[in-house]
Amino acid sequence: MFGLQGDVLIEDEFLRDGLQNEQRIFSIAEKLWFVSALEAAGLRRIQLGSFVHPKRVPQMADTDELFDRIVPKPGVVYSALVLNDAGLSRALSADVNHLSISVSASESHSRKNTNRTCAEARAAITPTIERALSEGIAVRAGIQSALGCGFEGRIDPDRVVEIARAFSALGVQEINIADTAGLGNPRQVFELCSRLRQEISPETALSLHLHDTRGLGLANMVAGLEAGVRIFDAALGGLGGCPFIPKATGNIALEDAAYLCAELGLETGISWQALRRPVAEAEALLGRVLPARASHLPLPPWEPMEAAS
Amino acid sequence: MFGLQGDVLIEDEFLRDGLQNEQRIFSIAEKLWFVSALEAAGLRRIQLGSFVHPKRVPQMADTDELFDRIVPKPGVVYSALVLNDAGLSRALSADVNHLSISVSASESHSRKNTNRTCAEARAAITPTIERALSEGIAVRAGIQSALGCGFEGRIDPDRVVEIARAFSALGVQEINIADTAGLGNPRQVFELCSRLRQEISPETALSLHLHDTRGLGLANMVAGLEAGVRIFDAALGGLGGCPFIPKATGNIALEDAAYLCAELGLETGISWQALRRPVAEAEALLGRVLPARASHLPLPPWEPMEAAS
Repeated sequence: MFGLQGDVLIEDEFLRDGLQNEQRIFSIAEKLWFVSALEAAGLRRIQLGSFVHPKRVPQMADTDELFDRIVPKPGVVYSALVLNDAGLSRALSADVNHLSISVSASESHSRKNTNRTCAEARAAITPTIERALSEGIAVRAGIQSALGCGFEGRIDPDRVVEIARAFSALGVQEINIADTAGLGNPRQVFELCSRLRQEISPETALSLHLHDTRGLGLANMVAGLEAGVRIFDAALGGLGGCPFIPKATGNIALEDAAYLCAELGLETGISWQALRRPVAEAEALLGRVLPARASHLPLPPWEPMEAAS
Repeated sequence: MFGLQGDVLIEDEFLRDGLQNEQRIFSIAEKLWFVSALEAAGLRRIQLGSFVHPKRVPQMADTDELFDRIVPKPGVVYSALVLNDAGLSRALSADVNHLSISVSASESHSRKNTNRTCAEARAAITPTIERALSEGIAVRAGIQSALGCGFEGRIDPDRVVEIARAFSALGVQEINIADTAGLGNPRQVFELCSRLRQEISPETALSLHLHDTRGLGLANMVAGLEAGVRIFDAALGGLGGCPFIPKATGNIALEDAAYLCAELGLETGISWQALRRPVAEAEALLGRVLPARASHLPLPPWEPMEAAS
């Protein structure tokens, strides 16, 4: 155990999964400030927003403009979430070159989120994925509620594997397993990710989107690392949640995930210390303390502990 | 990985490590209420307080009276912390039959905590441990700052192993590895505990006292479980911290640790749902929301996910 090595890519979702649940609507200028702060801290992939109906998620209504306004930094990928073909059309107009396109593995969650059964949602999204790929866009196919559903509870891993195999066969660059309700546990994460690594194409990357709803977020991240996963979503400050899960706390905190990797001797390119200012800014704008831990502590007077060999 | 099985013993430290850092002094009646609530939730070991100088830790001044007032529940162990021979004498007068007796693995922490070097502290505590054992008391020898020090940073694991071997040779029933400053990481916890399991007597139990200071508490607990540790300290609500570490958040939360074990198919005998009322009471008395996650969520409408075989 813990024979871990290599690089880890952490995608920040503060601007999308984080802000989409906040009453406060952040301005373009504010969002751009956070993008620059995340770039400065060493982020290599940032999800800027989602192309969903502005009436449904007003916090994301300016995603088109945000993509138009950003000055891309070399080596940084700017992604967005898309749930249907109309969203893809907007993403194409905005010249987005990396998209997350998701469906849910839970019938109840799928119906609440899209008014479609899982089968209907997949049938609808498949041509969207094919169209995105044909346009040369890097596609990350997401499977929501893959580790448990707030309405149904347990989700059959066979169902998740079957969806992942189908998406992988379409040629997507990455499969994203999302613990939308934060119901996953480390054993389950390890077993599902190990199995997926066996059953999907080795050319398809595997990533985890974890929520810390029940406090197991980083324990689940360690289990994912143990299973060979090297791409994780996180959100600055631990912002985020699921609008359908009451009191659901947020994504795993970006700074805590980066701190964990540093402690394990895994390279993320991210300075968790450099995230202290943007998280303080986010807390000032939101008027509350965010769940993240690492960014709330005084800087340690010593070097990070060297990773054991 | 995660070939986990068996029972897990969780010792609650809300009344000691938790309350010792609070401005508010809890009354005997309030402490007795929490004891009964913890018993009702299925706790099998509860640390009631510490026998330290009342001027130094006034929150623990009534520990003698608390032991005099409790009505012991069959199958439940009531423990206390002792730091010197004077404390042991008080514990003997209070008829305590399970004691934690601790030293620090960090010179700086030892000096701040006891005004002694590590060597001096060990020389002073050894006859105290021998006296307790000769009196038929079950002794848990604790090693504070074993996974990192808030002042020194990294602590040489050889030093921790050497202390543990010496304590084990004295015949203590349990060695408790304490991450006082919450600086441990999962790799380090796994490697140190695996090594200790090899180097101390198989008759000496090994336990972990983890803090969630940097968000790694439950990830470290999983690493300890993987290394074969089956005894963990936790505190109701995640209360606690270290008075010498600024902004240090608390122990791992009792309810989150119990939830994690339930999800992993490990038996603790604890109902984390039953901890919702005492944590709400603690929050009302302290006037703030505590860090625990599991007890802050609505009860799930489904059974806990069955542990994967």
